[in-house]
Amino acid sequence: MVRVETLRVELGERSYDVRIGAGILDELGPAAAALGNVAQVVIISDSTVAELYGQRACASLEGASLRTTLVHFPAGEASKNLATVREIYDRLFAISPPIDRNCLIVALGGGVPGDVAGFIAATALRGLRWVQTPTTLLGAVDASIGGKTGVDHETGKNLIGAFHQPQAVLIDVETLKTLAPQELRSGLAECVKHAFIRDATLLDFIESNAEALLSCESEPLTELIARNVAIKASVVADDERECGVRAHLNFGHTLGHGIETFVGYGNISHGQAVALGMIAACRLAEGKDLVDASLRERLTTVLKSLSLAVHWKDLDADAIWRIMQHDKKAVAGRPRFILPTELGKVDIFDDVSEKEVKQVIASLE
Amino acid sequence: MVRVETLRVELGERSYDVRIGAGILDELGPAAAALGNVAQVVIISDSTVAELYGQRACASLEGASLRTTLVHFPAGEASKNLATVREIYDRLFAISPPIDRNCLIVALGGGVPGDVAGFIAATALRGLRWVQTPTTLLGAVDASIGGKTGVDHETGKNLIGAFHQPQAVLIDVETLKTLAPQELRSGLAECVKHAFIRDATLLDFIESNAEALLSCESEPLTELIARNVAIKASVVADDERECGVRAHLNFGHTLGHGIETFVGYGNISHGQAVALGMIAACRLAEGKDLVDASLRERLTTVLKSLSLAVHWKDLDADAIWRIMQHDKKAVAGRPRFILPTELGKVDIFDDVSEKEVKQVIASLE
Repeated sequence: MVRVETLRVELGERSYDVRIGAGILDELGPAAAALGNVAQVVIISDSTVAELYGQRACASLEGASLRTTLVHFPAGEASKNLATVREIYDRLFAISPPIDRNCLIVALGGGVPGDVAGFIAATALRGLRWVQTPTTLLGAVDASIGGKTGVDHETGKNLIGAFHQPQAVLIDVETLKTLAPQELRSGLAECVKHAFIRDATLLDFIESNAEALLSCESEPLTELIARNVAIKASVVADDERECGVRAHLNFGHTLGHGIETFVGYGNISHGQAVALGMIAACRLAEGKDLVDASLRERLTTVLKSLSLAVHWKDLDADAIWRIMQHDKKAVAGRPRFILPTELGKVDIFDDVSEKEVKQVIASLE
Repeated sequence: MVRVETLRVELGERSYDVRIGAGILDELGPAAAALGNVAQVVIISDSTVAELYGQRACASLEGASLRTTLVHFPAGEASKNLATVREIYDRLFAISPPIDRNCLIVALGGGVPGDVAGFIAATALRGLRWVQTPTTLLGAVDASIGGKTGVDHETGKNLIGAFHQPQAVLIDVETLKTLAPQELRSGLAECVKHAFIRDATLLDFIESNAEALLSCESEPLTELIARNVAIKASVVADDERECGVRAHLNFGHTLGHGIETFVGYGNISHGQAVALGMIAACRLAEGKDLVDASLRERLTTVLKSLSLAVHWKDLDADAIWRIMQHDKKAVAGRPRFILPTELGKVDIFDDVSEKEVKQVIASLE
C-alpha cells in the first residue's frame, strides 16, 4: 500500500492542503476540478520538467474535463526574471478563448517554475487561483509552502514578487527520482536547516537515513517531506507576511544568498550555498558564545554524509558583503542574521558586524 | 477656514484614512512620518506631475526628516506597461543605501502614476507600504480608493496587477486646478457613475453645481470628492476582492473599456469612454424593460452640462466586441454588464447578447 500524507497549512481563509506520496501527480485533475468554477487551466513549467511530466499533468487535467494549456520557459535560475514573466503574460493573454478569473494556474516543477508561476498567478488579472506540483525536493519542502512568489532582479534574488497562497500542493515523491544529484542534495540542505531551527529529532532522522534519502527511496522521502512541510507550515502559519518568526527560515540564507549571487546561479545550488551559510552562522554563534563548536561539527558531519561541500574556494568577502547589503531583509543596509542558540532553536540578530561577517566568509575557504 | 474632510476606508487591518481639502499635499511629510519605521521614501510620479508638484512633495517629506528619492516616467496611458515597471524597478534597486522593507512608496499623480506606483509597491521586495496623493479628479474619486494597482498589456487594460491597499490617501483639491479640462471632465463622468449606482441625491448635487465644478472651486470640489470617496469606500468595504457588489463600479465600464481600447488611449479620456458606456448601459436596460428612456435622457443632459460628449463617430462594433471578450471581468468570453434598475441602483447581467451589444454601440454614433 502506498503511503500518502496530507497536511494542512493553516492560514484562515487562505488555508490549503498539501498531499505527499508516490503517484500523487495523477490526482492533479480531480484536485483541480474539486476547486469548483475552473474554466480552464494553464500549466506553467520549465523546459526540463515539461518534457518529463507535462504530458502526464495535461492528461490528468483533461481527464477531469478541464481545458488545459501548457506554457514553459527555458529551465534554470537564469530564467527567473521579468523577461520570462513578460513572455508568459504574452502567452497567457493570447489563449483563445481568453482566460478569465476562473482560470487556474498550475505550477509544475521545482523552485523556479513555482516562483514564476506563482508570480503570474498573483498578478494576472489581479490574481488567479493556483496549484503547486513541485517536482524537486527543494520545491517540496520549501518553496511550495508559504505563498512566496517572485523573480530575481539583476541586483538580487527575489526582489520582485508577492505573497500569494496556492489552493493546494501535490507532491509526488516519485518525480524526485528524475532529479540531478546536486538538486536532491540542495533540497536536503533545506531539510537540515528545518531540523536546526525547530526539530532536533528530524536531524536524527536525516542522519539515520542519509543513504536511503540520497537513493530517493519513496518511504523515507515521504516521511522526510511530510516532517519538513509540517515545520515550514507551522512557521508560516505563525507569521504569514514575514514580520517575525518566519525570519527563522532564513537560517543559513543571509550569507547563503550572498554566496549564491557571488558564485553565480548555475555554478552553485541554492542548498549548497545555504549549507555554507549555515556553517558560517554556527561559527558566528560561537563567536557570540551562544553555542559551542560541537553544533557546527555535527552540522558539518551531516552535510558531508549528504554529499554537500563544507568548504568553497575563492569567496571574495568584500564582494559578498556588498551583495548582502542589498538583501531585501537587510535593515538599514545591515544584514539580519539567524543564529542558533541550541540544536532546534534559533534567534534573530541584527548586531553582526561587517568584520565578523568577513571573517566567517574567510573561514569557509 | 479651509474645509478638510477625513473619511475612513474600512478594510479590517488594511483600513486607512482619506483626507481631502485645499493644501493637504503639505501634510505628506508628517503623514508619512506618522506611519512609523519609515527608513526612506520613494516618490513615483509622471513627468507632468513631477514638474508641477514633485518639489513640493519632496520638501514636505524632507521637512519631516525623511530621505526622499523622486522617480518619474513619461506622462500618459502609453507608459502604463511592464516596460515602465521594469525601469522603475531598476531605479528603485539602484538607490543607495539600498531600499529595505521600511521603504515607503508615494504615488504622486493621477490614475496612471497611482496604478503603476501601487503595482511597484505591491511587488517590490514582495510588498512595501504606500501612500497615494492623487492630483486628478479621476484618481481622487476612483483609482485611489480600493487598492487596485496594475498596468496594461497589449491585449487589454489592467490585465497585470494586484490588490494592495495604501496606508493613507491625501487629496489636495487645489492640485486639480492644473488639470486639463478633459481630465477634469473625465473625473466628473466617474462621479456621475457613482450617483447612478448608489446615490440619486449626488446626481442632484452635480446638476446644481456643474458650473462651479467645471471651474474647480475648492468648496464644491471638496464636497464632491468626499461624497464620491464615501460611495466608493463603502462598495469596496463590502467586497474588497471584487467577488460581488464591487462589480457595480463597472457601470459604464464594460463597453467603456472596449471603446477606450478601440479609439486608443490618448484619443479619448477614460471618463469620456465611460460616459458613452453608461449611455449604452441605460439603453441596454431599456431593451430589457428595466428602466424607461427618461433615465438615459437625464444622464445625457448631465453629461452635456459637464461638457462630455454623448455621441462618438466611427465606432466599429465588431472590433469593440472582440476587445470586450478579452476584458478580465468577462466570464467564459461573455462580457458582464452592470445595468441600472432605477436611479441610484444597478444590478449585474450576464445575459447581454452579442447582437444587443453591437446595436447599442451603433446607437452611440
